[in-house]
Amino acid sequence: MNNLVSSLIQGNKRACAKLITLVENELDGYEEVLKEVYKHTGNAYIIGITGPPGAGKSTFTDKLAKTLRQEDKKIGIIAIDPTSPFTKGAILGDRIRMNDLSLDKNVFIRSMGTRGSLGGLSGATQAAIKILDAYGCDYIFIETVGVGQSEVDIVKTADTTVMVMVPGLGDDIQAIKAGVMEIADVFVVNKADKDGAKKTLIEIDMMLDFKKDWDFRPPISLAISENGQGVNDVLNNILSHKKYLHESKEIDNKRLDRNKLEVKEIVHKRIEKLVAQVEAKEDIDTLLNKTITKECDPYTIGQKIFESVVK
Amino acid sequence: MNNLVSSLIQGNKRACAKLITLVENELDGYEEVLKEVYKHTGNAYIIGITGPPGAGKSTFTDKLAKTLRQEDKKIGIIAIDPTSPFTKGAILGDRIRMNDLSLDKNVFIRSMGTRGSLGGLSGATQAAIKILDAYGCDYIFIETVGVGQSEVDIVKTADTTVMVMVPGLGDDIQAIKAGVMEIADVFVVNKADKDGAKKTLIEIDMMLDFKKDWDFRPPISLAISENGQGVNDVLNNILSHKKYLHESKEIDNKRLDRNKLEVKEIVHKRIEKLVAQVEAKEDIDTLLNKTITKECDPYTIGQKIFESVVK
Repeated sequence: MNNLVSSLIQGNKRACAKLITLVENELDGYEEVLKEVYKHTGNAYIIGITGPPGAGKSTFTDKLAKTLRQEDKKIGIIAIDPTSPFTKGAILGDRIRMNDLSLDKNVFIRSMGTRGSLGGLSGATQAAIKILDAYGCDYIFIETVGVGQSEVDIVKTADTTVMVMVPGLGDDIQAIKAGVMEIADVFVVNKADKDGAKKTLIEIDMMLDFKKDWDFRPPISLAISENGQGVNDVLNNILSHKKYLHESKEIDNKRLDRNKLEVKEIVHKRIEKLVAQVEAKEDIDTLLNKTITKECDPYTIGQKIFESVVK
Repeated sequence: MNNLVSSLIQGNKRACAKLITLVENELDGYEEVLKEVYKHTGNAYIIGITGPPGAGKSTFTDKLAKTLRQEDKKIGIIAIDPTSPFTKGAILGDRIRMNDLSLDKNVFIRSMGTRGSLGGLSGATQAAIKILDAYGCDYIFIETVGVGQSEVDIVKTADTTVMVMVPGLGDDIQAIKAGVMEIADVFVVNKADKDGAKKTLIEIDMMLDFKKDWDFRPPISLAISENGQGVNDVLNNILSHKKYLHESKEIDNKRLDRNKLEVKEIVHKRIEKLVAQVEAKEDIDTLLNKTITKECDPYTIGQKIFESVVK
């Protein structure tokens, strides 16, 4: 195991892939690996890419990564795909577009499925970030459909979160309804050649006006990721935000938040395992069946499990 | 408190509103209320309405509710809105459309904000369902932006889940990427007057072909919720699914799943409270700060908290 970690630190791509698989699947010794790896982290800059389905997040990530590659930066990309039980795995459709990137030895791409486990995903993502950081990535992109609570939890711990919007999402209010607008540091209105792009930009701008005391007011760009238009603007906005985080020392708070989330996930995961053991031992299924006939209720069962687990 | 519960059972709307607020905010005695209320549940049929932002879920729910009102059914609607920290509350934009419904004394509408708390929402939703059920609702709609894990957890415990899609969500694959297709029992392609509606319908149909052994193959309808077109079709599909659930006794499994989720949330919530107490007592913040300087790491802290909490 220590061999793998040494190889990782030396920048071995296979070691990196193996270790991400190890921590993602929580295989034997994964916690020791993470403890060991942790000492070698702190160099990477984490960029969250989020937005509604169909906004063109993948293409945008692709273009940003390519631009950074021209400056010889080492890139990690974690794409969070909802898992389909039909296809038994993360849907890799979007990743196909990145094919030319994945042939680049200085780009590491990994898709992660949500697997239906509440909260489990953010733990796995945080762990993968640590591995990619120790691997030597300068920038790590986390890309996710951004309309869910656990997805929001993930992107909000990024150093810079880019929100990719598109025109024509419906009523004006829907833009706000996406619910993740407030975690964005940089906005992009993608597919700017479509009707309503300027209107969407103005709506976002007006929404940002609700808050008066910005330390860093999120800039908004129009872009067409398909042909690369606006990509440099967005990258410059990301780098401005990066500069702001470093100058204000806010970067440490970002890192602290990430570590807090990770601690929370670690505790949560361990307790979940314990709860599952208690449920099996105490034959909770039998009690649950009694809730259908009203002989028992969920609150009494919850109480019982809780008392069996905690000190 | 018992007075309130008695009033609820007798169908008092104010008592219903008060009790939902009580359980949603976990005010004193809320667990006793839920235990008491539980005995009076089991009549309501739960319909989840989900889909990407801008698909027209609210209008659709509105139309379905109005159609059921013509048959003198009592309706509950729980709309899950992402909460914006800017506006400090659930965004009620969509609910404005339902104004004429909310004046109907046999329709109870409640918006719930996500508040940024992981997992807390599904607990509150399950509790509100129980109150509305005991209140005497025949049908309870739960409407949410369906692209996140906790949102999926909520709608997948509905008796029938309706997935509202729209044409033009981007690449074909994006339709699947929404990640909640597999939990839908009934599909609607809304805004069917837009380009690409038939294409979207065919894509969904093809995706459903991936699975061969359907007990109830989800029907797909085209609809235009704005003018009511297709709403009756969708309602008939919902009622077919309802009939299937009752005849196959699958309805009990649905209820069991809801109760399981509720138990999970109860245990989770209680443990979270305990973890917060441990974190304060053990001065975890100081340790977390040491992760920035690498004197400590998240895994060691997680271990420490876990050991302080469990038996």
